Amino acid sequence: MKRTCLQALKVMGKMFRKLLTFEQAQQLIKEQVRPRQLDSEKILLLEANGRVLAEDVAAKIEIPPFSRSTVDGYAVRSEDTFGADEKNPVTLKVSGTVAIGKMPRIKVAKLEAAEIVTGAPIPNGADAVVMVEHTERAKDFVNVFSAVTRCANITKAGADIEKGETVLRSGTVMTSREIGVLAALGKAEVKAYKVPCVAVLSTGPEVTEPGKALLPGKIYDINAYSLSAAVMEAGGKPLYMGVFPDDLEKLKKALKHASSSADVVVTSGGVSVGPKDIMPKALASLNESRVILSGIAIKPGKPTTIGLIGEKPAFLLPGHPTSALLVFYLFVRPVIRLMSGKGSTSGQEVKATSGSRMFSAKGRKTFVMVSLKQDKPGNTLALPVSTGDSGAITTLAKADGFVVIPENVQFVDFNQEVTVHLFEKNC
Amino acid sequence: MKRTCLQALKVMGKMFRKLLTFEQAQQLIKEQVRPRQLDSEKILLLEANGRVLAEDVAAKIEIPPFSRSTVDGYAVRSEDTFGADEKNPVTLKVSGTVAIGKMPRIKVAKLEAAEIVTGAPIPNGADAVVMVEHTERAKDFVNVFSAVTRCANITKAGADIEKGETVLRSGTVMTSREIGVLAALGKAEVKAYKVPCVAVLSTGPEVTEPGKALLPGKIYDINAYSLSAAVMEAGGKPLYMGVFPDDLEKLKKALKHASSSADVVVTSGGVSVGPKDIMPKALASLNESRVILSGIAIKPGKPTTIGLIGEKPAFLLPGHPTSALLVFYLFVRPVIRLMSGKGSTSGQEVKATSGSRMFSAKGRKTFVMVSLKQDKPGNTLALPVSTGDSGAITTLAKADGFVVIPENVQFVDFNQEVTVHLFEKNC
Repeated sequence: MKRTCLQALKVMGKMFRKLLTFEQAQQLIKEQVRPRQLDSEKILLLEANGRVLAEDVAAKIEIPPFSRSTVDGYAVRSEDTFGADEKNPVTLKVSGTVAIGKMPRIKVAKLEAAEIVTGAPIPNGADAVVMVEHTERAKDFVNVFSAVTRCANITKAGADIEKGETVLRSGTVMTSREIGVLAALGKAEVKAYKVPCVAVLSTGPEVTEPGKALLPGKIYDINAYSLSAAVMEAGGKPLYMGVFPDDLEKLKKALKHASSSADVVVTSGGVSVGPKDIMPKALASLNESRVILSGIAIKPGKPTTIGLIGEKPAFLLPGHPTSALLVFYLFVRPVIRLMSGKGSTSGQEVKATSGSRMFSAKGRKTFVMVSLKQDKPGNTLALPVSTGDSGAITTLAKADGFVVIPENVQFVDFNQEVTVHLFEKNC
Repeated sequence: MKRTCLQALKVMGKMFRKLLTFEQAQQLIKEQVRPRQLDSEKILLLEANGRVLAEDVAAKIEIPPFSRSTVDGYAVRSEDTFGADEKNPVTLKVSGTVAIGKMPRIKVAKLEAAEIVTGAPIPNGADAVVMVEHTERAKDFVNVFSAVTRCANITKAGADIEKGETVLRSGTVMTSREIGVLAALGKAEVKAYKVPCVAVLSTGPEVTEPGKALLPGKIYDINAYSLSAAVMEAGGKPLYMGVFPDDLEKLKKALKHASSSADVVVTSGGVSVGPKDIMPKALASLNESRVILSGIAIKPGKPTTIGLIGEKPAFLLPGHPTSALLVFYLFVRPVIRLMSGKGSTSGQEVKATSGSRMFSAKGRKTFVMVSLKQDKPGNTLALPVSTGDSGAITTLAKADGFVVIPENVQFVDFNQEVTVHLFEKNC
């Protein structure tokens, strides 16, 4: 038998070998890749948007830091106003004015009042504020036309946050609102989990970097670009490494460099069976590397290989753009999220009605790319996009998400209810 | 009458003055602030994630750039295989091998075949590919056990994208998927709309920058921090300017500097009626500035002032953190989105059941901050958070979104269906 014939047999052998299921692959990643939260670092609160808090934050001050008026009016001793109404005002002596921004020196004694504005500290002696609308000023005196109870129109010191109270917990994603709370406590810096750095490289003798001239027989690289963007969407920081030729030594060097410069390594191409499995070979032949799984019973994405270089997870994705991005979404994204401290919550889902029959690949969990279309009000159609060639680039741009068909189901029928897992939408 | 008494009358006059409705304010912004898309700039495709395309992109090459095989096998002339089956194979002479990454020099003549791998260019003469699984190699010959039709297992040049085809339109938000398509076309740079720069400053004699010591009677600044983060969430680039004292000349200078350094100016504090309306005064007294509206019948956020400094929109928000962030969300965010080319789509909404009765402020469109809580499966409760003091900081962190109560509705009852407008959630 000739070499090619042996190869054909090898191909067929691999095809019929029992592949890991999707869930087994997930389990192996959890047990053997063991992604963990990265270390924390001090960052400026002004740069904390979208980052994950890596400390429990307890209030070192109370909020508000002093009792303050919630209205414009007069700070009074509430007992002095008892019985006051429209017909029987109480007359108080105005002992001074309380300004915003400093503690008042004046004291409100019996039958006295201090002019006060919203937000200003309550002067000593006073225990309530009468709204300006319920008063009438006459020189150094003020007529109060309404009785107030103790604490009326006052926010007490510590009413919002008590000193020592734990206000935010480690693991919280900081949005504009959490950042507001941290600013209120006077924090200009916070501890946040580091952002996972993900090295991204493509391989293939036919792959050319965008921006360069395209020679006959070549195609432009898609994956290092789309995967770098997908890394950002997952909350990571991409390290774009470009395109590498199918050269074992160069690939080994690239993998080594990637794993020492980044927290995760993602490659695409060179994982198919036969002569094109150079990436798993390069990974396996590195010192301190380990191939954890090679081949998953999913469509697309079957030849995916996952391993470790030292302690750094390495994901070797297929070269087909749609397959690469889907496998990234299924297996890499959750790892990036876990490392960033965001936890591996699944993305957004919507219910829709299948717009046509969608077939599964025998024995493989099948992911059908669909676009969504508003049908009647309250009904959304899920339309499969270009099911044939997973290399088709436009499939990517047209898909809003994907429908999952389990291994034991032959097809999803027309008009059946389906769950669509949505891709990122930057809108 | 004394000064303070006159002031009280002024306060009451302003209170009963007819305020602009929410919709009138929106209309005035549209007609007089007239936010427009910013200019475009060339950016690297690697940095395009989340940016808005500012050009129609037509394909300068076809995709794929050459007809290629979708399987491993043999490139053949389909007519040579007619009639071939398991029992009657057709024997073809193997004239050579086609590799990936360069155009094949060989030609497939009658009764010839060329070994080919997935993705490799189809050699001249061949018009179909037989899968390796349906062949048996014997030295320089191959037995074909299955007939193929013309174009079988071939993706034709241009099948995915035709040369000249407009692939992406100006105005598209670029995600990993659009970036993949642009890379496929060989673009390493694209034209994108500039990101709006938004200057953010706080004012108030009591306001201290986080990180500094807190003197008695002072509070830490919240708004310049929470609003800077909200600018990022809206797709803008914040320019943090910090805290300014209540000094008309200093504020005028700050506004001038802000408007010359940024595309939009956002301030908070100093907009209340009475002695605290220093921000509208500062805005009005600038050259080439214009106050477009002052006061909107909304709660919270009534004293909001909106104007122009030259052609730059200026939003003077209230000092209360929750009010400031809500008004930002209602009026500033749509302007930032419009300028960035993203269009002013409203945020995400969910249906929920009100967890308690929520009251509106008389004659004002009322926005009630709520947190969401999963009740029974399929039912979400909307619970109002701290309705009293809009200065309460924790209100911010606890709220998932808000419920709108129209001007002519007194309250939303317990157990009533409500629409909750969700705040940003970085998860």
